[in-house]
Amino acid sequence: MKKYLELIRDNKIFNGFIIFIITVAALSVGVKTYDISSTRLLNIISYLDYLVTIIFLTEIIIRMGSENKLTDFFKSGWNNFDFIIVAVSLIPLESTDVVLVGRLLRVFRVLRLITFIPEFRKIIETILRAFPKVSYVSLFMFIEMYMFAAVGSILFSAVDPSHWGNIGLSMLTLFQVATGEAWPDLLAATMATHPYSWIYFVIFIIINTFILLNLIVGVSVDLIANNEEEATRERILEEITLLKDALSERKLNG
Amino acid sequence: MKKYLELIRDNKIFNGFIIFIITVAALSVGVKTYDISSTRLLNIISYLDYLVTIIFLTEIIIRMGSENKLTDFFKSGWNNFDFIIVAVSLIPLESTDVVLVGRLLRVFRVLRLITFIPEFRKIIETILRAFPKVSYVSLFMFIEMYMFAAVGSILFSAVDPSHWGNIGLSMLTLFQVATGEAWPDLLAATMATHPYSWIYFVIFIIINTFILLNLIVGVSVDLIANNEEEATRERILEEITLLKDALSERKLNG
Amino acid sequence: MKKYLELIRDNKIFNGFIIFIITVAALSVGVKTYDISSTRLLNIISYLDYLVTIIFLTEIIIRMGSENKLTDFFKSGWNNFDFIIVAVSLIPLESTDVVLVGRLLRVFRVLRLITFIPEFRKIIETILRAFPKVSYVSLFMFIEMYMFAAVGSILFSAVDPSHWGNIGLSMLTLFQVATGEAWPDLLAATMATHPYSWIYFVIFIIINTFILLNLIVGVSVDLIANNEEEATRERILEEITLLKDALSERKLNG
Amino acid sequence: MKKYLELIRDNKIFNGFIIFIITVAALSVGVKTYDISSTRLLNIISYLDYLVTIIFLTEIIIRMGSENKLTDFFKSGWNNFDFIIVAVSLIPLESTDVVLVGRLLRVFRVLRLITFIPEFRKIIETILRAFPKVSYVSLFMFIEMYMFAAVGSILFSAVDPSHWGNIGLSMLTLFQVATGEAWPDLLAATMATHPYSWIYFVIFIIINTFILLNLIVGVSVDLIANNEEEATRERILEEITLLKDALSERKLNG
Repeated sequence: MKKYLELIRDNKIFNGFIIFIITVAALSVGVKTYDISSTRLLNIISYLDYLVTIIFLTEIIIRMGSENKLTDFFKSGWNNFDFIIVAVSLIPLESTDVVLVGRLLRVFRVLRLITFIPEFRKIIETILRAFPKVSYVSLFMFIEMYMFAAVGSILFSAVDPSHWGNIGLSMLTLFQVATGEAWPDLLAATMATHPYSWIYFVIFIIINTFILLNLIVGVSVDLIANNEEEATRERILEEITLLKDALSERKLNG
Repeated sequence: MKKYLELIRDNKIFNGFIIFIITVAALSVGVKTYDISSTRLLNIISYLDYLVTIIFLTEIIIRMGSENKLTDFFKSGWNNFDFIIVAVSLIPLESTDVVLVGRLLRVFRVLRLITFIPEFRKIIETILRAFPKVSYVSLFMFIEMYMFAAVGSILFSAVDPSHWGNIGLSMLTLFQVATGEAWPDLLAATMATHPYSWIYFVIFIIINTFILLNLIVGVSVDLIANNEEEATRERILEEITLLKDALSERKLNG
Repeated sequence: MKKYLELIRDNKIFNGFIIFIITVAALSVGVKTYDISSTRLLNIISYLDYLVTIIFLTEIIIRMGSENKLTDFFKSGWNNFDFIIVAVSLIPLESTDVVLVGRLLRVFRVLRLITFIPEFRKIIETILRAFPKVSYVSLFMFIEMYMFAAVGSILFSAVDPSHWGNIGLSMLTLFQVATGEAWPDLLAATMATHPYSWIYFVIFIIINTFILLNLIVGVSVDLIANNEEEATRERILEEITLLKDALSERKLNG
Repeated sequence: MKKYLELIRDNKIFNGFIIFIITVAALSVGVKTYDISSTRLLNIISYLDYLVTIIFLTEIIIRMGSENKLTDFFKSGWNNFDFIIVAVSLIPLESTDVVLVGRLLRVFRVLRLITFIPEFRKIIETILRAFPKVSYVSLFMFIEMYMFAAVGSILFSAVDPSHWGNIGLSMLTLFQVATGEAWPDLLAATMATHPYSWIYFVIFIIINTFILLNLIVGVSVDLIANNEEEATRERILEEITLLKDALSERKLNG
């Protein structure tokens, strides 16, 4: 039985079929965002939804059954992720008051496309590997923005309360400035009362750019170094081989 | 005959002349976008158009004839590209209803400037070499934007239907956000009804920036690694030579 | 006594407590930006403020006392920084006319979060290490912007005085252009009178982008080179070890 | 005489004085952009202008005289650059009709600050070294934008003539799109008539970003490779030294 399930799990056609089903689920999520007047199409989408749920359930049971122990299945983070997505989509949420939550949860089934294809897993793993470095710089950036937001609130809350009314609004405003959005308008609003408010914006933009640059360069350098390290190991092996060849050649000659 | 054609093909003056003709074709495409009242100028451009078509045809026949077999000509992707551009410009499209298509096709003749000059070919080849890595990250980004677009449609379609009405509109809106365009306006439109919609935008911008950063760094690291590899090969050869010299020097001394 | 203070200073719980207190100080700065009607909450914040000041003072006295000599304490730039922040927060600024300054100074206490956590110190040190390279390119960029601002003032001050009235306004305007803000609007304002003013903007954007690119690449290359250097040193040692092994192996065999 | 001039030229105080004078010239250019009502200040600036011109002339004569032959002076590109700036500022342009040209020429004297300080020369030399690579990619980008501009003119000139009226306007519009400016507005203007015009914008932005990315990465890789090459040369020498030591050590032992 377990061997049979293992054969199914590793079967190329089976995996291709699952990718096809996830794509169908993804498309049905998209189609539902259009105004659909045809009752027939609505019914088809509704049936598709049940079908996708059943196929996902079957697939995860097959993958669970193909493991030696059930606990082995939950050792992989990706499996846990898949299990949660499938389990959540089993919760009946068709009553009118939670229909929005139900529709949002359906979107997460598209995530399975990312967890199912190895190349996408690798992209996520690369991003996660950069996480420790990134998280400290992000926290640093958060503190910096918090401080600027506090100063912004203290200085400008009376002049432009819709943008600087409290530290929460100020942080959102500064996030917009950081993404390069409409800061000349913000400056114009404060310039009349505080003619030197441009200093605040110029300093914030320069400091923020520097920290962001530091983040980008830091992550790049790390990735390049990792790449280098692997390449170096191979290179050293290659060099040693060549060296040995050179030495043995000399031995033969000398 | 074939040798004679080969001599023409590899002749510097001939190639310079073709580059000149492509430039003329490019300029005539540009001139035509201005309102031209003079009938004389219109006639000149029209005659130039015929002339360019005839010269392109002659040139491609020369290049075809200079090959041993005609199939050799079509082995190069660049030749196929050139052939299609020239062949397409031979289709008579001067009737009024397809005149727009005819004008658009004429623009593609400018592309020959890129296929004709080796330095430009190299740039395209570099971009194409980065393609496999780029295509997976692009698909990943597409899925991520599709999911955010689905969530955006579900949440905001009632509030701001011109931007979030369906998944198609939502994706276009998110592409605008991704290029750093006017998201504070989009936020303002949804903020009144959904006071927490800023979470959606902030998360989207952060995730999108990370994936884009991953793409840029990934491609850079690949290109640097390729560069490194070549350099390493040379370096190892150099080191081996130096090592051999050192060993033979020792042999002479010892 | 000194040993006892040293034990406290290096105690993990003590350090965790200080980080907690800085966080409390940071949060109280944020809470104060909201309109608080409850007198009780205002009192709590006011008492918290005194408490934080006293704890900071105690902590810095402990760290001073744990050194062999007081001058040792001031040898570290970070200690000086901390001392100034704590000393400044002791100045009584609660009188109504300087209440704004007092609130701004309180914000700087959040900076202690950055100086207290080693990972954040490292980020700042990395940024400072890039400073010499950055400062020259920044000065270069400043001179370039000054020249463009002078030209902009001379050409456009009559047409659009609110943006180009004098060299100060012009520099602020160019800084906005450099951050990719609303230059089409600026262009539209001058285009009517000076139809060739687009040349000014296009040249400024291209030159500015090049210098900025130079700055980013320069800093990255420096950081990568530093990283490389360290890696190389290790690599050479590794190679030498392997080489010695290969030689001794040969000795045993030959 | 020549030796005496050489002594002056290489004197630190003399060079410091010239940097001071260039800075004065730069500041006077800036001050003149403000509305100055005081006749006295205007006179001072006017006298300063004469003084700066005379000092620059004296300085360049000293540097010319300190060379063995006058032709040696013109061998350096930087000297030619300085000579042109000083010579041009000698042309009397105070008549009212060319007063604007005179003011603009004065701005270029600020450029001397860049040519005089070695660190700035190095930045320019780095930028110029990247020029061959950059110029081909820039030309490639220009051709690409020209083609998109031609297509844009053909498609949208009837709908939005102020942005797409002819190929010149279209190129300026696309340059604005390339700098991430207000393309949602451009899209909105064409969307009503051409519902698929978003395809044009999305393709342009994606292709343009890729070419720009290629440019940035290409230049970075080149700079890193240059850096690497130098480092490698040193590394190989170091390795050879260590190898020789290892071999001689073995000789002593064996």
